[in-house]
Amino acid sequence: MENQQVLIDRLPTGKLRAEDYKLTDSPMPVAGPNQVLIKTLAFAITAGTRAGLQGSASYAGAPAAGRVMNGTGVGEVVASNAPSVAVGDRVIAATGWQQYVAMDVEHVTVIDPGHDPIHYLGPMGVNGLTAYFGLLDVGNPEPGNTVMVSAAAGSVGHMVGQMAKIHGCQVVGVCGSNDKGRLLVDRLGFDRTVNYKDANYRQSLKEATPDGVDVYCDNTGGMILGSALFRMNVGGRIACCGVVSQYDTDTPEPGPKGVPGLLVNNRLTMRGFLLFDYAEHYAEARNAIYGWLTSGQLTSLQDEVVGLAAAPEGFVDLLSGGNVGTRIVRLDQ
Amino acid sequence: MENQQVLIDRLPTGKLRAEDYKLTDSPMPVAGPNQVLIKTLAFAITAGTRAGLQGSASYAGAPAAGRVMNGTGVGEVVASNAPSVAVGDRVIAATGWQQYVAMDVEHVTVIDPGHDPIHYLGPMGVNGLTAYFGLLDVGNPEPGNTVMVSAAAGSVGHMVGQMAKIHGCQVVGVCGSNDKGRLLVDRLGFDRTVNYKDANYRQSLKEATPDGVDVYCDNTGGMILGSALFRMNVGGRIACCGVVSQYDTDTPEPGPKGVPGLLVNNRLTMRGFLLFDYAEHYAEARNAIYGWLTSGQLTSLQDEVVGLAAAPEGFVDLLSGGNVGTRIVRLDQ
Repeated sequence: MENQQVLIDRLPTGKLRAEDYKLTDSPMPVAGPNQVLIKTLAFAITAGTRAGLQGSASYAGAPAAGRVMNGTGVGEVVASNAPSVAVGDRVIAATGWQQYVAMDVEHVTVIDPGHDPIHYLGPMGVNGLTAYFGLLDVGNPEPGNTVMVSAAAGSVGHMVGQMAKIHGCQVVGVCGSNDKGRLLVDRLGFDRTVNYKDANYRQSLKEATPDGVDVYCDNTGGMILGSALFRMNVGGRIACCGVVSQYDTDTPEPGPKGVPGLLVNNRLTMRGFLLFDYAEHYAEARNAIYGWLTSGQLTSLQDEVVGLAAAPEGFVDLLSGGNVGTRIVRLDQ
Repeated sequence: MENQQVLIDRLPTGKLRAEDYKLTDSPMPVAGPNQVLIKTLAFAITAGTRAGLQGSASYAGAPAAGRVMNGTGVGEVVASNAPSVAVGDRVIAATGWQQYVAMDVEHVTVIDPGHDPIHYLGPMGVNGLTAYFGLLDVGNPEPGNTVMVSAAAGSVGHMVGQMAKIHGCQVVGVCGSNDKGRLLVDRLGFDRTVNYKDANYRQSLKEATPDGVDVYCDNTGGMILGSALFRMNVGGRIACCGVVSQYDTDTPEPGPKGVPGLLVNNRLTMRGFLLFDYAEHYAEARNAIYGWLTSGQLTSLQDEVVGLAAAPEGFVDLLSGGNVGTRIVRLDQ
């Protein structure tokens, strides 16, 4: 029995292409002492992992040619040499893009048997938690505030908007197609959306934010961040969650105009964060999110592809905005 | 008797020139009901007022051709129609660049008779208060932190550095000449300084901040802000106090690279502020600053020119970095 894997064939130059990956079979891994063997059920493809392929990271395990592509997955334990995890347990871990993986038990989190494991790739996983802490802790919205979010139909953005509605805010989403915009308004309750590809985007954004913007959750950086800066109200907060506009390139743009001039004039705060700074609060966040999912206040959009072989094309497409919600690869094993 | 004034002859295009101003004599003002007549003793020239000449402000009283140039001054009351202010009181007010001004009493602050009024143009005025709140509230340094400050020999910067030393920090100043750098180290106790005009500035900054930077007080924006972003430690704070690099121009630069990417990766906070947000805390700040001045922990550098006619050239020179400390124009009346 072999282990199918997607390897990085070479780090991308310029835009990522599916040909930068290679599907291979390698020997089946074996769980060593204190390890578990996981059979991957599904993994998420997230834009942030594109940044890791820019080649500046140099730590052990950093993405490099010849390595298995990294990613967060959920799976079932099929062998265990650790007393705390049993065969049959479902877990979330950095499985990577492969059918099987053996990992030290410390790097594995057992999923509550009452929960749908797929939720751990979306609203209760990295994306949902990023939305939760970025909006609520960094953005700190008050009821009645206007919250703007970019990549609004993306895995983080569509949850930011719904969480802001739960907190009594007006929500304006920026996305890359009118279809996505309609979905966000009709199905998820966004108040207004703006298509950043429209020629009159800046004017449309102005019209969509007649009271200005109090909290902006930035998933893109670049031009959209620049446009948001000019709509921020005095005392506004910008939560820097991600920089998707600058991932799929060798030549990042200069920073937005208005930094730092508008920050001074309008007393704005921009704050970046990484999710793992909040690790000790994951449990409380997951409880809140699970409550909203079960009450129907929060809808998780997923966008599934099937089979390891489809993952590279799924990633390329995601980076050009082809996804709606969280892109998940389900393994057909 | 006439009132000598410096008028804005026209709003500058490109760099400010002394010829953009005009010295005139106009009729002596008279204090109306509830007004005081102030004889100006001295006023400060501050870089921030250059931004007001960029012509985007449109409120009543905004700088415009034909108006008296705006600025904060100290003076002596020579006539009063208000019970709360007596002839002979010394006051701080938005006198502008002129010998005499009549103002509503609400816009005038009486200076404690025990204090040197000139201090109200420096350490106890706009500059000192900006340093105080920018460093201590926005920057929030802890003992042992490395604090970096730009325009370090300027009116705000030289006080930021000394206040950071009082708080037990390592202080690295960025300034535009080696002479200024030596002065900051030898006379004011800065740990290290770097000259941003040196060809190897970035390497020198790296060597001057071996432990990275925890708090950066940005008075410049532009290239120096960009260089600071790459030296910030995880969790670092950037206090956006001013943007002097972008005032004396019609064509502001794009924002710094690294925004928002480095903010995310290193969990940085950038926060802009305006001094008047802190108005209710001025008294406590002035008490603290007065204490440091009298104990000798804080030295106020001043750089005086004499006579209204010298003010325009003094402003042009300030914008190219010619000053050390607070530039004050003393009137020779």
